[in-house]
Amino acid sequence: MVTVGTGPTVRNNKGGKGVTMIRVGINGYGNLGRGVERAVAATRDMRVVAVFTRRDPDTLATDGAPAVSVSSMGDYADQIDVMINCGGSATDLGAQSPLVASLFTVVDSFDTHAAIPEHFARVDAAATEAGTTAIISSGWDPGLFSLMRVLFDSVLPAGSTTTFWGPGISQGHSDAVRRIEGVADAKQYTLPIPATVEAIRAGDKVELTPRTMHRRDVYVVAEEGADLDRIRTQIVTMENYFDAYDTEVTFVTAEELERDHSGMPHGGQVLRRGDTSAGTASTLTFGLELGSNPEFTGSVLVATARAAYRRAKRGLTGAATIFDLPLGDFSPASPQELRSAYL
Amino acid sequence: MVTVGTGPTVRNNKGGKGVTMIRVGINGYGNLGRGVERAVAATRDMRVVAVFTRRDPDTLATDGAPAVSVSSMGDYADQIDVMINCGGSATDLGAQSPLVASLFTVVDSFDTHAAIPEHFARVDAAATEAGTTAIISSGWDPGLFSLMRVLFDSVLPAGSTTTFWGPGISQGHSDAVRRIEGVADAKQYTLPIPATVEAIRAGDKVELTPRTMHRRDVYVVAEEGADLDRIRTQIVTMENYFDAYDTEVTFVTAEELERDHSGMPHGGQVLRRGDTSAGTASTLTFGLELGSNPEFTGSVLVATARAAYRRAKRGLTGAATIFDLPLGDFSPASPQELRSAYL
Repeated sequence: MVTVGTGPTVRNNKGGKGVTMIRVGINGYGNLGRGVERAVAATRDMRVVAVFTRRDPDTLATDGAPAVSVSSMGDYADQIDVMINCGGSATDLGAQSPLVASLFTVVDSFDTHAAIPEHFARVDAAATEAGTTAIISSGWDPGLFSLMRVLFDSVLPAGSTTTFWGPGISQGHSDAVRRIEGVADAKQYTLPIPATVEAIRAGDKVELTPRTMHRRDVYVVAEEGADLDRIRTQIVTMENYFDAYDTEVTFVTAEELERDHSGMPHGGQVLRRGDTSAGTASTLTFGLELGSNPEFTGSVLVATARAAYRRAKRGLTGAATIFDLPLGDFSPASPQELRSAYL
Repeated sequence: MVTVGTGPTVRNNKGGKGVTMIRVGINGYGNLGRGVERAVAATRDMRVVAVFTRRDPDTLATDGAPAVSVSSMGDYADQIDVMINCGGSATDLGAQSPLVASLFTVVDSFDTHAAIPEHFARVDAAATEAGTTAIISSGWDPGLFSLMRVLFDSVLPAGSTTTFWGPGISQGHSDAVRRIEGVADAKQYTLPIPATVEAIRAGDKVELTPRTMHRRDVYVVAEEGADLDRIRTQIVTMENYFDAYDTEVTFVTAEELERDHSGMPHGGQVLRRGDTSAGTASTLTFGLELGSNPEFTGSVLVATARAAYRRAKRGLTGAATIFDLPLGDFSPASPQELRSAYL
């Protein structure tokens, strides 16, 4: 019998001679789960054992991984090295991650910033009790952006960090517009204000408010006969979501929305400007332009799963975050290969 | 007596109540050593115990740290938690780092890429034998750029990475020009070609050669009566250094060189463009614009020293690189603080 976390050495076309294949489970099969499946396919050292779903497994059109009912997850304890939890933060991960951590080494993308300490504590308790390893809140924000904020602060302590998001689709804002009466469908883009980005980069004084940092573009499909002016006003004045921003509303047909706005691009940048001595400034930048937000988030989760697997092999149990992971563990290459090829 | 690697808990203005101050030694006091001294001053949890020099210590004008002869270094074994080796790779670090690792936890910025595996092996042997911790080849390249190359490859495995350097002063190229007969002084700037950077970022096909990626600007102070045309020709045709690039040579006075070109700016960017699925591209960018190359390198070494100190406290001895360090260890903040404030 194969033990959890061991990962048998197999020989196949993918892994190649002597490569230890890491056996991955995908828990949840929405956009993120699909992105994880694709990202595992792009690796040379990982394979998907099963996709777990709350739906009827027979209805799942995966890229090839077997679909299994989530109720059978317990039967897979010996066949999966790392489970990647692909549910949402609002309703799924808070309960799922502690539960899954009691059976498997697990990675999630929990992104409700304010609730992270509590989520960490609950997952840590479950993982410590079960002797598993759990990495919470990976992805790109939280995740890579968080990592850069820590790195930038650490190597340039006298300075300030600014994060811009977009251009990209905000799911939450799109949903808020869809709830307005008379709106059949909508997509909302968040866009950084280029002049403000440039000012920060150049070290110019600039007031940072929601309106100076980002603007919002909304594409709306209205129901027949709906009052467009009323919809526009309801959008641009919506508290918390739109009232503090300059928002442009464009009405389009359902066909135009499908043709021009069905992608899920996103991205952003973390900038730090500071001084290494009086009058000597440096600017550090980390930027992402992502064709598909869920595919890239999935890809980061897969690299994180590799690091979680290695952390588990070292016997480091309990919960941790991307701050605790050596980045060499994200790579399929050995430490020797990394030193000679990447350093 | 205080034990090496323990770091007494002190209470002073800098550290604040209960902060463990990490005691740093600086080995070598050129531009880099000076940058390290400044960077330690900017931290809240580190202090310089002594600067070690091969020169007469009385001739060293430090920012305040005591200057001591390198021959007395052995007397400081109990007073220093981490030594930062600030010598050059060409002549100093190859011998210094193994030697220092036999006494102290140590960090260096060894940057002769081809010799890194051999340097690692020698430092590892010394550190393992002595039970110390050594981090080699930190800084920004090698260092942060290396880290980004590994991270980018790991989270976007189907793609290609390009590194551009500059705008910045190349010491090696400046020195090469200074060796030409009739040249009194010179500074050489390496500059990326913006159109090529943009093409890579946009995913356009572009031929990458020395000439399409970078150009070189040289500012020369000629000796009186020197043949300027001959100097210009000797520069632009110089093998390995200039012949594969477009180079612009400008003759200036000694005063102009001092006034306009006495800084040590540098920087560059690491770009990765790749696909998360067929036809869905992402671009990842990490960029540095540094007012002072040695000051920023010093600052990265200081953050690395903090991580080395923590690694030593965990009992992880032998040599390692930035790939082996959790980035949370670069920060003075606790894991709890990092999770609540940065994640």
